[in-house]
Order: sequence, then structure tokens, then C-alpha cells
Amino acid sequence: MINIKINKNLEMNEKSFLMIAGPCAVESKEQVMEVAKKLKEMGVNVLRGGAFKPRTCPDSFQGLGEEGLKLLVKAREETGMAIVTEVMDTENLSLVEEYSDIIQIGSRNCQNFSLLKEVGKYDKPVLLKRGFGNTISELIGSSKYISQSGNNRVILVERGIRTFETATRFTLDVSAVPLLHEKTEFPVIIDPSHPAGVSRYVEPLAMAGTAAGADGLIIEVHPNPKEALSDSSQQLTIPEYNHLYEKIKRIAPIIDKYVI
Amino acid sequence: MINIKINKNLEMNEKSFLMIAGPCAVESKEQVMEVAKKLKEMGVNVLRGGAFKPRTCPDSFQGLGEEGLKLLVKAREETGMAIVTEVMDTENLSLVEEYSDIIQIGSRNCQNFSLLKEVGKYDKPVLLKRGFGNTISELIGSSKYISQSGNNRVILVERGIRTFETATRFTLDVSAVPLLHEKTEFPVIIDPSHPAGVSRYVEPLAMAGTAAGADGLIIEVHPNPKEALSDSSQQLTIPEYNHLYEKIKRIAPIIDKYVI
Amino acid sequence: MINIKINKNLEMNEKSFLMIAGPCAVESKEQVMEVAKKLKEMGVNVLRGGAFKPRTCPDSFQGLGEEGLKLLVKAREETGMAIVTEVMDTENLSLVEEYSDIIQIGSRNCQNFSLLKEVGKYDKPVLLKRGFGNTISELIGSSKYISQSGNNRVILVERGIRTFETATRFTLDVSAVPLLHEKTEFPVIIDPSHPAGVSRYVEPLAMAGTAAGADGLIIEVHPNPKEALSDSSQQLTIPEYNHLYEKIKRIAPIIDKYVI
Amino acid sequence: MINIKINKNLEMNEKSFLMIAGPCAVESKEQVMEVAKKLKEMGVNVLRGGAFKPRTCPDSFQGLGEEGLKLLVKAREETGMAIVTEVMDTENLSLVEEYSDIIQIGSRNCQNFSLLKEVGKYDKPVLLKRGFGNTISELIGSSKYISQSGNNRVILVERGIRTFETATRFTLDVSAVPLLHEKTEFPVIIDPSHPAGVSRYVEPLAMAGTAAGADGLIIEVHPNPKEALSDSSQQLTIPEYNHLYEKIKRIAPIIDKYVI
Repeated sequence: MINIKINKNLEMNEKSFLMIAGPCAVESKEQVMEVAKKLKEMGVNVLRGGAFKPRTCPDSFQGLGEEGLKLLVKAREETGMAIVTEVMDTENLSLVEEYSDIIQIGSRNCQNFSLLKEVGKYDKPVLLKRGFGNTISELIGSSKYISQSGNNRVILVERGIRTFETATRFTLDVSAVPLLHEKTEFPVIIDPSHPAGVSRYVEPLAMAGTAAGADGLIIEVHPNPKEALSDSSQQLTIPEYNHLYEKIKRIAPIIDKYVI
Repeated sequence: MINIKINKNLEMNEKSFLMIAGPCAVESKEQVMEVAKKLKEMGVNVLRGGAFKPRTCPDSFQGLGEEGLKLLVKAREETGMAIVTEVMDTENLSLVEEYSDIIQIGSRNCQNFSLLKEVGKYDKPVLLKRGFGNTISELIGSSKYISQSGNNRVILVERGIRTFETATRFTLDVSAVPLLHEKTEFPVIIDPSHPAGVSRYVEPLAMAGTAAGADGLIIEVHPNPKEALSDSSQQLTIPEYNHLYEKIKRIAPIIDKYVI
Repeated sequence: MINIKINKNLEMNEKSFLMIAGPCAVESKEQVMEVAKKLKEMGVNVLRGGAFKPRTCPDSFQGLGEEGLKLLVKAREETGMAIVTEVMDTENLSLVEEYSDIIQIGSRNCQNFSLLKEVGKYDKPVLLKRGFGNTISELIGSSKYISQSGNNRVILVERGIRTFETATRFTLDVSAVPLLHEKTEFPVIIDPSHPAGVSRYVEPLAMAGTAAGADGLIIEVHPNPKEALSDSSQQLTIPEYNHLYEKIKRIAPIIDKYVI
Repeated sequence: MINIKINKNLEMNEKSFLMIAGPCAVESKEQVMEVAKKLKEMGVNVLRGGAFKPRTCPDSFQGLGEEGLKLLVKAREETGMAIVTEVMDTENLSLVEEYSDIIQIGSRNCQNFSLLKEVGKYDKPVLLKRGFGNTISELIGSSKYISQSGNNRVILVERGIRTFETATRFTLDVSAVPLLHEKTEFPVIIDPSHPAGVSRYVEPLAMAGTAAGADGLIIEVHPNPKEALSDSSQQLTIPEYNHLYEKIKRIAPIIDKYVI
């Protein structure tokens, strides 16, 4: 596995287990600041938050756009956390790149090859999510679009695939962890929030992904999930995340890792 | 169903059944001209051909780009056929729009919402393919991104979904035809080439989609499939397509349609 | 394809297209008699009806058992139709075999190998449904359990598979028709009722399966679907079935077949 | 969760984590004895081994039948381990019940309702595997067929479902653990061997299932996997299993359990 430097204080390596957390979408200054401070106190070093949201229908909340990015930067200034946020197109790529420490490519853009090639020209880590309809082999193909464009700081994310089972939103494919480790040199992190769909399944899926040997977790956390503008049923409260965080710290040594 | 005008001679309506055919990718002047002339002689009025190809891996043939578009235009000048070709990003959208009569959004970009919004600003019919990992409901959501941006000339395409069955490349979901007719006002056409994966299953899948009540077919046809630079196993030869075309003409009246 | 003799008046062959219809479950004498007479008048020669019903939960209606079989026999005596009904276990196999003309193995028993071996010892046609979780290759394996036990009168049924799409109950895999024809010598019929899940999608799926080259259709028809004890939303009324039947008669010649 | 007594020395409860291991199929006295002794030395208390094997094709090795059961009993006499073996039909049910401590219903018989009802009449724990095409809700329905027949000692097994991903044999659905715990009172164990398909993915999947909160693991272990008559690529060697076993002992306390 290659090492991936995120900022001057933070680097992913063979032994590290990276915790990323934050709200599905940036909604307001108060929301971002509250969650960022609480997470930082716990020891979390990377804040997630969507400013541009890919929504199935055009009538759903589409995110705050550049205003959202600015709020994330405020949170970084206040807490020192690195920030990761999604880019949906090449138009906004330089904007997103300017504001963020890690650029996220969402599940629906996993095979947006034009975007992947452009992202590959920047000198920033890229968090590439597996498409929910994509095979592991296709995810690897997509990672090559980025690395062959010159950027080999790719972080792969397993976030669940579409199956016939409807009791959960997606089916987390934990086998992606050993498979991607075997076939690529990129770290692999688990997003347990989207497959769970419901907050009470997030912890067991996070535990599963960690024990399978993942290199980190990206989890949706909201100060008040009930009032969230998107994904309200699957976001953890801060105490719920804290409970999970403590368990992850206990499991990490068993897979020879330490939480960062 | 709304009527969709394609060019001054061609319009889709409740009674029409539109045949679209042509190679997976534009490869050379000879190839495009040969297939276009033969198809036009048969009665086909819309030529397909990819100039920008979305490929799983960056090392695969990526298409001829603008040169490919120019060859398609030559074929239009020679035969009078309308042309449809895929756009993969907003960068090339005005270029593709300039050269083509119908703009195609491929399966992997079905939820590339930024691209959908931009395409919706142009005054050209859009052929929107269902993502192989997308539900019918998501395809409808994607069509709204186009129509709410101002362009309601959307042609929906069922092209097979990912399932556990590996005997074919994808599983054609014929129920998409009645479902989309029920829930939208857009025409629905079937792509039997991609689910078949192998040329000998293309005809039965085309027949099935037609009998289910589709409004047209888009089929990959190549003068010499064995030497094709992409999708070589699933492209029909010109005689194979002719055989299929004759059967479609016989089945159309049973679903109250005539072939255009 | 091998010919399959069903009774002294009825034989499936390369050119025949077999229509099988009747209620999901045998519920009462009046119900069976009414539907049987109406179907026979239309020209249908095989009556389906369940006496032993495989239900997901033990609290659901489990069928009338032997009483149901006797009602089917009464309908045969009255109309001359052949009857097909499901056997769920080896205990009831000799009973079901005694009463029926065709023995049905349901989707959930597609890989009940002990049952398949036993059915293979009888001298009656077997209608073997594809498991909704089984590949085409597994269905072929199951058919060999029957034929290698001595009975090669197997009729294969495609009835939809489980996929991520929830707009229909199952996804009809029409490619099963050419694939099974290529790899086996058994006829292949389509069950459009179970994948549709809702009666208004039954006709388009039936048309699709027929045009793909199937050798027959098995369809749920009930004199009063709203009051059916099982599958009430997907059963056709008699007039709806008649409408479909007339269209199938028009499509059959295009695939070189005549309706029996 | 209900407690499930297996034999006079062994009981599953809220805090226990049950390790079951042994070969896919019983092949010979030497094979069974060797693996049983080594597993017992390690601390494993339940031996698995198939005597009746459900195989996709009739030409594959079908198991040793009653001879296999007798070899399992010999291993029990020698080691004191409890034995679990699969029953495929009601014909052999009393035979299998007589020889075994836990009766296994395999994935392909998850909805063989006649078999489930009969098994429910016996006074022995039943290990019920989820069908690879069945939802969690259907698995719960199947468990009710057993419990409503009088036997509520049911152990549920998640063993992977069919999805579009072909890099592994099945996709392990770890969310089944919290879902089944929420909706039933039965213990839930994980079979990582079948979804892995290849031995090197068994350990990460076993770790994942354990961390998700499962109540045990059932794993295929063979003294010499390369020469196994079935599932040769996915069976662990004894040293590989020992490596896994030690890691499970470290992870169990984190989910508040101890290994039995």
C-alpha cells in the first residue's frame, strides 16, 4: 500500500486507520461548526460535508454550493481538521479543489471518466467511491483513470452495492476490502452509512468493515439527524458516533492498526 | 406520449417505431460509409456511432473524438440519415451538439446530473440510457433533470441491468417499457445489443422488446464485427440486421405501429 | 427440441405454442369450473391451479390439498383440459402424479434435488420452474436430475429472477429463451404473471416472451381476482386473458408457431 | 435471544460465540478423524461435515450418505465434539436426526417448506441457512415453519447472497446480523466460506461477520484442501483455521462474547 499524505499532520499508511466523519450535507454555519468541534474533541481529523449534492430528482435539496465550501473552510480554520467534499463535474472542480484537502468522487460518478481524468491532473488526494452498480474490477479501472493522469493518491471507498435485498438501502460488500488490497496499492475505506440506510445498522457495518481489514471509515454524523435536509434516517448523532469510535479504537489493534 | 421531431423528415409519435442502427464506435471513413449506405438502403433513418467512448479502463480504445463526429456528418450528407452519438462531458457537449441530430447520454452517465442539466439547455432530442445499476424510478428522475432544464424531447432507452445472471452481459428488463409508458410521456426504445453481449441473442431480445410495446430499437451493426475495435462479439453483420429488420416490420402492426 | 406428449390430443413440438392458464390456487368448485369452462371455450387446453401452495409464511393460505386436486380432476372431466399442478414434496408426489397430467416443480424447489430425482422416476411431463435465485446454468443442472432419472419430458419455465429493481415483483429474463434452446432440447415457456406482480404488466411481458421465441405461456387467470386468496394483484380476469390470447395468436406465426 | 442447548456440555447464549468447523464433505475415515482431532485440540466443539451433498449437477460427487454419517459419529465418539450435518429431504430426516446433534438445512432448501415443517417436529437444534436468493424477511418466514411446528431451537446462518459481483462466489450480507437479531430471537451465525469462494478471503469475511455481532462461525476446514472432492478452493487448511481462530478469540470480547 502506498502512503497518502493528507496534510502536514496527517498521513495514511499501512498501520493507520483513518476516521472521517461529518454531515451528509453542509446546511448552516451552526450545524457545521457544532459537529466539527465535537468530532475534533473526540480525535477525528477529517471532516466530511457535501456542498454539491447528487440527488435522484431535481426538486430535492441540491446543496449550498460555494457557500457550503466556505463553511467547511471555516470549520477547518477553527479545528485544524482536513476537509473532504464531493465534486460532481469539471466546471466546479477547480473550485472544490481550492477549498478542500481531499476531493471526493461520488458513487454516481464512479464511471464519469472525463471527471476522473481531470481530477487526476490535480495534486490532491482523491476519495473515489465505488458505484453501487459497479464491480470491483470496474472500480479498479476507474482508479486507473486518475492515477494514469498523474495523481496516484487515490483512496478507494466501498459503500454498498445494489442487490435484491431491500431491508437495507444497499448491501455492504466487505469482501471488497481484501480484494482491493490484493489488486491495487490504494487504501480502502468503508462507508457504512449508505448501505445501512438506518442509523442503528451503521455501527455493526462499521465494525464489520474494520475487522475485514479496512484502512478507515467515512461516516455521516449530524448534530440533529431528524432535521437533516438529506439522509436524515442514516446519520448518527454525536453520542452514537462516539460510542462507535470507542469500539473502533478497541478493534484496530487486532488488525494491526491505530486510529488516526 | 409526446411527439419528438428529429429532423424535417422524421418524427416519433404514438404509432411510429424508430429503427436506429450503426457501429459501436466510428472507426474509419470506409467503415461508417459502408454501414450507413447499406442501412439507408434497407430503410433505416437514424445512424448511431460512438466518437467518444466510455471504457472501463483507460488503456482501451477511447474513440476518434472530433474526427469521428466529422465522419458521421459525412455519412449524413451522403445518405440523409439523422445521426446520434454519445456525449460524455460538458466540455464536448457543444461540439457533439453541433454535429449530431440526437445527443446520447450513455448508461454510465445516467446520473451525471451536471451533464443532464446542461443537455437540457439545448434544443436537440436527447437519447437517455438507463444506468445498468439504476432503477426505473431513478431513470425517471434523470429525465426530469433534462426536461426541467427546458428540453422535453427525451427518448428513454432500456439497455439491460446488472443481475446475478452471467450467461448474458446484462439482463434486459422488458417491463421497463410498460412502466415507463405509464409513468412518463417520453418514448421508450430498446437496446438489445448490450444485454445480449453476443450477436446471436440480439434478435430474440429485439423481438421481445418490440412486442412489449417499445417505440424503437437501437442496435449495433458493423460491416465486419470480428475486426471491430470495441464490442466485437455483440455487433450484428449487415445481413443479420436485415433478417431482424424484416421480422420487426411484421411484428410492428401487432402493437399498432409502423416502422420508420 | 424433443416433442412432449401431454395427453392423447395434445403434444408440444417445434411448431406448437402451448397456452396454459388458470387460477393461482384452487379455491372452490365454482371458481375452478367457471374459469375452466371459459378458458376451454377460448381454446385453452391446459388448466393450471395450485392445491399445495408454497407460501413464505406458515400463516398464509396453504392450499386445499387433495380436495383441490379432486376439483381439478372434475374440471378435466367437464372440459377435457389437461391439468398441471404443483408438487412440493416426495410425500405427496404419488398423489399429485395420480391426479395431474403435468407435474409442476415450483421456483422454490428448483434445486430440491431429492424431489427432482423422484419426479424423474414417473412417466409424466414435468414443468420445471427456474428458481428466482438460480442461473440458467443451474436450471439446466436441475433438468438433468429429472432426465437422468429416466424422464426426459421436461418443460422449462422462465418466471423472473430477483434483481435490485422493485417496480416489478421479479425481472423477467427473456434471454433465457434463446439460451435454453441453445443448451437443452427441452421446450421453454414463459410465466409473465409472477414477474409482473401486477396484472397490467402481464400482457406486455407475455408478448415479449412469445416474441423471444418461447414455446408457450403459463398465466394466472381468476374469475374474480380481487377476491383471490393468493396473488390477487397479478391474476388476469377472463376478458383480460382473452385480449392477450388474441394478440398471441397474431404473434405466433411470426416466430413460426401456431397456438395450441 | 433464546438459549440453545446443543448437548450436555454446550449451550449457545447471549454471551457465547460458537465455532463450528470441518470439511465440506465427509470423504473418508482418515480425513474426518484427522480434522476432528486437530479442531478439538484447538478448542472447537462442533464438527461440520456433509454426508448428503446438494450439487448443481447429478454427475458431481453426491456424498457418502449413511456411511458418511457413521464416520461423523465415530469422530464424535473419539473427540466428544457435537456434529452437524445437512439433511436434503424428509426421507433421510429420521436417519440424519438419529446420527447428528444439530440438523442442517442448506441454502437450496431454505424454502422447502415441507422439509421445514418436518424438521420442526424433532427435538434437535436446526441450523437454517439463508437461501442465496432469499431476502432476510423470507428467511424469517422459513424459521417460523420450524418453530410453529414445535421446535424453536433454530440457528440462523448468513452465507452470502447472489449479486452482480463475480469476484467472490456470493456477497456476504453482514447486515443480516443486526437485522435478524432485531426481528427474531434466534442466534445468527456466519458462514464465510461459501461467499469467499477462495480460501484467502475466508478470514476477512469471518472477522467482519464476528465484529458485526454474530453468535458464531461455521467454516469449511480440510486436512488437504487441494484434494477435496468438493469446494476445494474455499476450504481452509488446519493452520489457516488456527490463525483465524486466534484472531476471533481476540475480537470476541469487543462484542461482549467468549468463544465456545
